[in-house]
Amino acid sequence: MKTVVIGASGYAGGELLRLLATHPHLLVTQVSAHSNAGELITSVHPHLNTYQNQKFVAIEEVNFDQVDVVFIALPHGQSASVVRNIPSHTKVIDLGADFRLNDSAQWDKYYDGEHAGVWTYGLPEIPGQREKISKSVQVSNPGCYATSIITGLLPALDFIDVSDVVVVAASGTTGAGRSAKINLIASEVMGSLTSYKFGGIHQHTPEVEQALSNASGKDLKISFTPILAPIPRGILSTITARLTSTISTEEVNASYAKFYEDEYFVDVLPLGQMPKTGSLTGSNKVQIQVAVDEHVQRLVISVALDNLGKGAASQAIQNANLMCGFHEGSGLSTDGLGT
Amino acid sequence: MKTVVIGASGYAGGELLRLLATHPHLLVTQVSAHSNAGELITSVHPHLNTYQNQKFVAIEEVNFDQVDVVFIALPHGQSASVVRNIPSHTKVIDLGADFRLNDSAQWDKYYDGEHAGVWTYGLPEIPGQREKISKSVQVSNPGCYATSIITGLLPALDFIDVSDVVVVAASGTTGAGRSAKINLIASEVMGSLTSYKFGGIHQHTPEVEQALSNASGKDLKISFTPILAPIPRGILSTITARLTSTISTEEVNASYAKFYEDEYFVDVLPLGQMPKTGSLTGSNKVQIQVAVDEHVQRLVISVALDNLGKGAASQAIQNANLMCGFHEGSGLSTDGLGT
Amino acid sequence: MKTVVIGASGYAGGELLRLLATHPHLLVTQVSAHSNAGELITSVHPHLNTYQNQKFVAIEEVNFDQVDVVFIALPHGQSASVVRNIPSHTKVIDLGADFRLNDSAQWDKYYDGEHAGVWTYGLPEIPGQREKISKSVQVSNPGCYATSIITGLLPALDFIDVSDVVVVAASGTTGAGRSAKINLIASEVMGSLTSYKFGGIHQHTPEVEQALSNASGKDLKISFTPILAPIPRGILSTITARLTSTISTEEVNASYAKFYEDEYFVDVLPLGQMPKTGSLTGSNKVQIQVAVDEHVQRLVISVALDNLGKGAASQAIQNANLMCGFHEGSGLSTDGLGT
Amino acid sequence: MKTVVIGASGYAGGELLRLLATHPHLLVTQVSAHSNAGELITSVHPHLNTYQNQKFVAIEEVNFDQVDVVFIALPHGQSASVVRNIPSHTKVIDLGADFRLNDSAQWDKYYDGEHAGVWTYGLPEIPGQREKISKSVQVSNPGCYATSIITGLLPALDFIDVSDVVVVAASGTTGAGRSAKINLIASEVMGSLTSYKFGGIHQHTPEVEQALSNASGKDLKISFTPILAPIPRGILSTITARLTSTISTEEVNASYAKFYEDEYFVDVLPLGQMPKTGSLTGSNKVQIQVAVDEHVQRLVISVALDNLGKGAASQAIQNANLMCGFHEGSGLSTDGLGT
Repeated sequence: MKTVVIGASGYAGGELLRLLATHPHLLVTQVSAHSNAGELITSVHPHLNTYQNQKFVAIEEVNFDQVDVVFIALPHGQSASVVRNIPSHTKVIDLGADFRLNDSAQWDKYYDGEHAGVWTYGLPEIPGQREKISKSVQVSNPGCYATSIITGLLPALDFIDVSDVVVVAASGTTGAGRSAKINLIASEVMGSLTSYKFGGIHQHTPEVEQALSNASGKDLKISFTPILAPIPRGILSTITARLTSTISTEEVNASYAKFYEDEYFVDVLPLGQMPKTGSLTGSNKVQIQVAVDEHVQRLVISVALDNLGKGAASQAIQNANLMCGFHEGSGLSTDGLGT
Repeated sequence: MKTVVIGASGYAGGELLRLLATHPHLLVTQVSAHSNAGELITSVHPHLNTYQNQKFVAIEEVNFDQVDVVFIALPHGQSASVVRNIPSHTKVIDLGADFRLNDSAQWDKYYDGEHAGVWTYGLPEIPGQREKISKSVQVSNPGCYATSIITGLLPALDFIDVSDVVVVAASGTTGAGRSAKINLIASEVMGSLTSYKFGGIHQHTPEVEQALSNASGKDLKISFTPILAPIPRGILSTITARLTSTISTEEVNASYAKFYEDEYFVDVLPLGQMPKTGSLTGSNKVQIQVAVDEHVQRLVISVALDNLGKGAASQAIQNANLMCGFHEGSGLSTDGLGT
Repeated sequence: MKTVVIGASGYAGGELLRLLATHPHLLVTQVSAHSNAGELITSVHPHLNTYQNQKFVAIEEVNFDQVDVVFIALPHGQSASVVRNIPSHTKVIDLGADFRLNDSAQWDKYYDGEHAGVWTYGLPEIPGQREKISKSVQVSNPGCYATSIITGLLPALDFIDVSDVVVVAASGTTGAGRSAKINLIASEVMGSLTSYKFGGIHQHTPEVEQALSNASGKDLKISFTPILAPIPRGILSTITARLTSTISTEEVNASYAKFYEDEYFVDVLPLGQMPKTGSLTGSNKVQIQVAVDEHVQRLVISVALDNLGKGAASQAIQNANLMCGFHEGSGLSTDGLGT
Repeated sequence: MKTVVIGASGYAGGELLRLLATHPHLLVTQVSAHSNAGELITSVHPHLNTYQNQKFVAIEEVNFDQVDVVFIALPHGQSASVVRNIPSHTKVIDLGADFRLNDSAQWDKYYDGEHAGVWTYGLPEIPGQREKISKSVQVSNPGCYATSIITGLLPALDFIDVSDVVVVAASGTTGAGRSAKINLIASEVMGSLTSYKFGGIHQHTPEVEQALSNASGKDLKISFTPILAPIPRGILSTITARLTSTISTEEVNASYAKFYEDEYFVDVLPLGQMPKTGSLTGSNKVQIQVAVDEHVQRLVISVALDNLGKGAASQAIQNANLMCGFHEGSGLSTDGLGT
């Protein structure tokens, strides 16, 4: 199927191109990037040898009539104007936040600009969601942090106090985008840890709360603190919540393993093994480990994923696979790079 | 004053040597390291040019009679046997955990071996503690994580629910010691984040709870999750607790600033600036920022320090300065390396 | 074809497993690792989800009769004893150095133990070598540094003074193996650069000299200085040699491009773009750029590759593909990870 | 003495401020930074607690009449216009390149803009130079790479072929300045090695050739290839040249040790120990090791330093100390940070 990537000069766009290069059914026919239009793809992504001699085109030059699947990887707020030019039967996966939130008030609180609308939320591991995605032509791909937090909490909703969940998550620098800012230059980042969007103001907060409130039928609230870590890729989320019933670490681990037993891309690790971001690099996998801290009666959950993989590009392809009726894992990797 | 460093081949020991090299009153006269006895100090610490041509001696060779101050930087469980050979009037600062816990039951739960005893807890920023340290000849230097968590929580004890505090903290690799283990080699660590001692089992837990329960007069409990980060030095702790009264971010920041206004080594940052581990490298400083997340009525606290600095070696020297009647900041740096 | 990996607990072995997991024709049926025999593969390689629940077997347990292809990724000196147990018609690719050198005297100078013998040298990009590899059942896979230096110099042999070539190359830490040594722990490596095997004693020296002396018909000599860099993967080699004829940067670049025009895995970059190790991570690619420094009449060559990719595992698979008559690029990636 | 730092918002300027904060004789009274004028110093350099509540002033606001020592740390080409406003008797150390080159033709070849002039070259370890610096009021501080290459080659000039010296040097990212450029952001730099200013075009080339041609009385030429390494600080230079006489590694090491025996800031390491950039971080030290590669009759020299230390800020202070008649090591560190 003919595939277009819009916003392909960023890191998520580049990862889409990398993965689509070996996808058995999706063929990239047009690659668009606004500010790099006319440049060689390899001038921005020198690792993408597959695209040698191909150039980015301006979005105005994209012919959407000859396209089956569109991936949009633009900064937040820019998707709606692109979508207007896409025929309504064309499958679209938006990696931005524009169509994730049901509640316009939440959009207004956490984002700039007008609320674009609501599309099917593209996290297939939420019970019932896979079927909805399969029937959708427009899917909103989840945020990277949100994916880690939602997959980490879904199996626990019945035995934790959902009104007071605490999340501290560290992300690699590609999560901040391919953007020339002083606080992102290597001299500032390497060898240092620092928090940002501090005090519950990160925009993935309402996305997590919406998805998990829907899933639990209760009003779930998170306290979320993001941290910038000196790694290019990877998110490690530590989630903790008070237990509402007495349960052992072994029982929780078994419960999680049961919950995800049919999921190909979520691994509940055996007790004793911890999620490690490097193990997921380049893959579409999530790794989860759990423990009950009896001395405070809290459940602690550790979740790792690749922010550009299951947190963005490969999740988008997983959604496209579902929407197109392909094998859900087509073109996706279950093995990470390791080191 | 004649000074001995015991266990000088580790990272904390090396940092002690580095700082003592320019201390105006403490003169290093003997340097001991068990397994490296007989080797040049610079063969282990090639950065310590000051000690060129000097060798580590075995602990049996140390003559404690001619010593005024002893720093012990041994692995946990080894201090008591050394202390037996030190005259009772000699000032000793133990960087290990051996004399930190009041409760033998807690020692038995979190550590191996016999509980060595209880010394004055060497965190001068705890109200009343500076005076106790000044009058002590034996001081137990706090753990690196513990220092960050205690200094982060002390000013908040009156307006948070101390029974349910959540801490997620990431540490640089020197915190794991100078030890040849597969999980610490660069190929495994660089580019990755992973948690360890997961589920409330880290040994700094009782140390924090003891110090803060004493300070608050209530039974404080923490859920503590440590993370190994791909940086050599630095701890970034994120602490969150439910607020028991309505208070704004501005008020909490002002309250923290007031609490630490006379403290030279704890900086409550102006709103808008976040603690950053790289800013503290090599210094004896702690940086703190706070925020109230109103949507969950939680206080969030971010604390940064150098695990080898205020978390170990420079804090030990701060204690020695107090014990010897020197200016508290003698030989210590308030400026970090930056990058 | 049934495939065995011997020495699979190291980094090169792990990369072989990762790549073979998606190879269209080679099926891993047995995985051996001496000291980890009986352990889960994922306990050593937590990124290899494909091998979940599979265990390493001891080499004694490997049944070579039911195997078509054997990859050996053992430390130097251990291959010969394994090879004795492999039927002579079975295809074997040895990633170690044991069968690389023609001259026993060179083996004795640079390695310990007995010289094992001489196999076909597995660098298909050397003119004429692809055919030899295709007809061989036993192939010796080149060293990581050697691959970068040989591919970098091959097109220049006619216009440089081969008697005095200077190479300075930096390698990621996986090149030093998965070994618990103090000098390899993250605290020592991160944030630092240091040279090793200094003064022309690195064991890839005779390998390079042998291959390029053969190719040039002259006695080529290199001065080779390796450097340990704080990255997990990647080699960047800087090669310089005196020009023997007047030639411009443009002409050399064109000459290199011509030389490699039919090679799928060697990219001579357009002028203005430099090889970058991160662009090759996980791929089987080599990137090369050249320049003439007229003020000293020297050719300067920059070469990047992934030491575990084209420098080890993926090159071994490229050789296996040739030996088995598969498409040379089967199961190999031309796109690197990028970041 | 009253001291001004011009261009204090960059990394070299920040390191000057850090070191001057504890200098016994130089007191920073004014701090200037063009684009950050009016901002808090700690908003740019959050590690410099000493300067809390102080602001950068515009250069127009600096009162040079009340100043004894001026450090200029501006980008190349901007010093001359500042110098015009400084009284001629005021001591000035320029960290930029503006006054380093004797030959205007070389300036025109490697730099933009007009050649500003020629000042005393501030590398005290060049024989005879210390005395010239001591008598100068205007000193041009050497480049970071240049310092490493010149100190590495000075003792060898009598027994190498100076007409054909090869240098490959890797630098940390602070060497590229505190500048928001895509190629410097952490996502691009971490985990990767790449060369730049490739083919003999780096501007430190004429500076090295000038200094060493003067010192040797012959026309010295270097082939210089710089590499960007994923570390914040540090330069590791590998220098190699053909030997013109038969000499052993031991003899060269002894000769180097003899050459630098009275130098406080240059350490020729004992055989078996290699220079390591991390060992020099924050110090004013240079570490050197040498080897004779007999099989190619080449001398190989490895040199490490901190590009912001002996390569910039601390070297500038060493020069100021000489110019002011202070102890040469005042306010400078011989011990690096280590990790």
